[in-house]
Amino acid sequence: MYGESALWQRRLGSVTFDVRPLRPDPVTHPLSSAHELRVRYAETDQMGVVYHANYLAWCEVGRTEFIRERGLPYAELERQGCGLAIMDATLRFHAPARYDDRIRVVTTLAELKSRTVRFDYLIEHAESGTKLVTGSTTLIGRSPDGKVVSFPAALRRALGEVDA
Amino acid sequence: MYGESALWQRRLGSVTFDVRPLRPDPVTHPLSSAHELRVRYAETDQMGVVYHANYLAWCEVGRTEFIRERGLPYAELERQGCGLAIMDATLRFHAPARYDDRIRVVTTLAELKSRTVRFDYLIEHAESGTKLVTGSTTLIGRSPDGKVVSFPAALRRALGEVDA
Amino acid sequence: MYGESALWQRRLGSVTFDVRPLRPDPVTHPLSSAHELRVRYAETDQMGVVYHANYLAWCEVGRTEFIRERGLPYAELERQGCGLAIMDATLRFHAPARYDDRIRVVTTLAELKSRTVRFDYLIEHAESGTKLVTGSTTLIGRSPDGKVVSFPAALRRALGEVDA
Amino acid sequence: MYGESALWQRRLGSVTFDVRPLRPDPVTHPLSSAHELRVRYAETDQMGVVYHANYLAWCEVGRTEFIRERGLPYAELERQGCGLAIMDATLRFHAPARYDDRIRVVTTLAELKSRTVRFDYLIEHAESGTKLVTGSTTLIGRSPDGKVVSFPAALRRALGEVDA
Repeated sequence: MYGESALWQRRLGSVTFDVRPLRPDPVTHPLSSAHELRVRYAETDQMGVVYHANYLAWCEVGRTEFIRERGLPYAELERQGCGLAIMDATLRFHAPARYDDRIRVVTTLAELKSRTVRFDYLIEHAESGTKLVTGSTTLIGRSPDGKVVSFPAALRRALGEVDA
Repeated sequence: MYGESALWQRRLGSVTFDVRPLRPDPVTHPLSSAHELRVRYAETDQMGVVYHANYLAWCEVGRTEFIRERGLPYAELERQGCGLAIMDATLRFHAPARYDDRIRVVTTLAELKSRTVRFDYLIEHAESGTKLVTGSTTLIGRSPDGKVVSFPAALRRALGEVDA
Repeated sequence: MYGESALWQRRLGSVTFDVRPLRPDPVTHPLSSAHELRVRYAETDQMGVVYHANYLAWCEVGRTEFIRERGLPYAELERQGCGLAIMDATLRFHAPARYDDRIRVVTTLAELKSRTVRFDYLIEHAESGTKLVTGSTTLIGRSPDGKVVSFPAALRRALGEVDA
Repeated sequence: MYGESALWQRRLGSVTFDVRPLRPDPVTHPLSSAHELRVRYAETDQMGVVYHANYLAWCEVGRTEFIRERGLPYAELERQGCGLAIMDATLRFHAPARYDDRIRVVTTLAELKSRTVRFDYLIEHAESGTKLVTGSTTLIGRSPDGKVVSFPAALRRALGEVDA
């Protein structure tokens, strides 16, 4: 059923999709989405490349656009009392991005549980397709006062959960 | 009465101290305070110098330390329902700061009104004393819901107002 | 001759266009360009609005897109041995931008000299048109080793100088 | 021989010290160093906590201070033609840091090879000792033109390699 995401699987290889009870319709809810941005001067460092911490911010842009494409602006999610707080992040740096490069952030839903969600990222040069960074983040639902909360139905539906 | 701040006046020259009804005791409430920091790699850009927007963040560190020295942590001020929102900022760039430089931020209270306060800044190289950036910001009191509010007594006292 | 930029003049009012010998053709070289971006979560602060230093980075995005529209990517300018180093910046904050807002940065060429250029900025909410920040920056040509240099012909042509 | 770093081992537990041929003298070259900083307003986000990407910048501050304590400012390392480019980063977020908190970054040398080095990080609240973030980064030596290079003797000595 996930064969449709062959593009991504060709790219990241061993990503496992342990997504229960997630069974998204691959047409209405593809597992990946792509977003492009351009490197700002502010994001470079004196090594002449993008400072590495900025990729984490780009991952966030990627997952924000991922859920927006599915009809749920993240701001609306926070208004419903559920923020997505980061639990862990892993990044591998393959090649540097440089000032003014067009960058593509491909965000893939990798695992959905009742209170946590994992996204995988492929950050690549938009024109050449050169792989720059691959990574993964796990996020947990938190109320404004910091308590762990289950994801609201709006998020589970946006992420493709059938029964939500 | 402000002759005691000769150090600063020697440096910035034409700063005018239109501070009514501010009449701080120059011993207990000197008009200037200095804070040092070290340039981080994250703050450089590919020109090999500090990216200019970071100086605004350093100005904020400077004024935070200014009021902390006077007994009022900014976090406490926010807990009292008054944030300091920025109204305007002016910066002049004289020489670039570079990675790993020790930097001194000299913050001077320039004008205090019931709901606004202006600070002037001198950012200099801590060892050589080279003048890097001079600037000024005006801030206004705002409640958490965005309304303009008068400064609480705790802030006016911290800034040296005698009657507060 | 500058009547064509009425849109901008309506907005900023008293901007003076002391641009000699600049006499750009208003069709091929309009004095203003607009660029849109979306507020990132990374750009907010705990006051729930965009942290003020980020507007300076957006101004830079604005002027970069301004000269790109005129055929000169800034990266190409640096390759020609001329970076644009900031000399001064002034910002006025009228209303806060918030997370996920669509923002429009309108950049206007305000003054061009042989070695310095001034841009004015209007940062507004893209949908409502609410004025958020107005500002101005002056930049100076610098070689990679920090020397002041005259602007290369490619830049002067891009900015609309007829004789360049 | 590494029993002296019991403080750290109590904290991180299962860190493995596969450091060959590293045999640092535990007195002159302890495996860990601590550096303190204070959370800036610019580092918070609208969730009211430190934006997660900033921890990566703090890790960099930590390892910079680690090698500075051993006599090698990172700027000097770059002057010798060897930058430290990041290969991978892993962060786990245990509790959030907040504005104005005093933070301690404990940096531990975890593995040294001829061209790569791994540092582990413990970021904790300086007063309460609350564990905030743990993480790890691997860095590789790169020349200014991007080629992988062996670490110069100055770095290997600073990191405690006996034969360097």
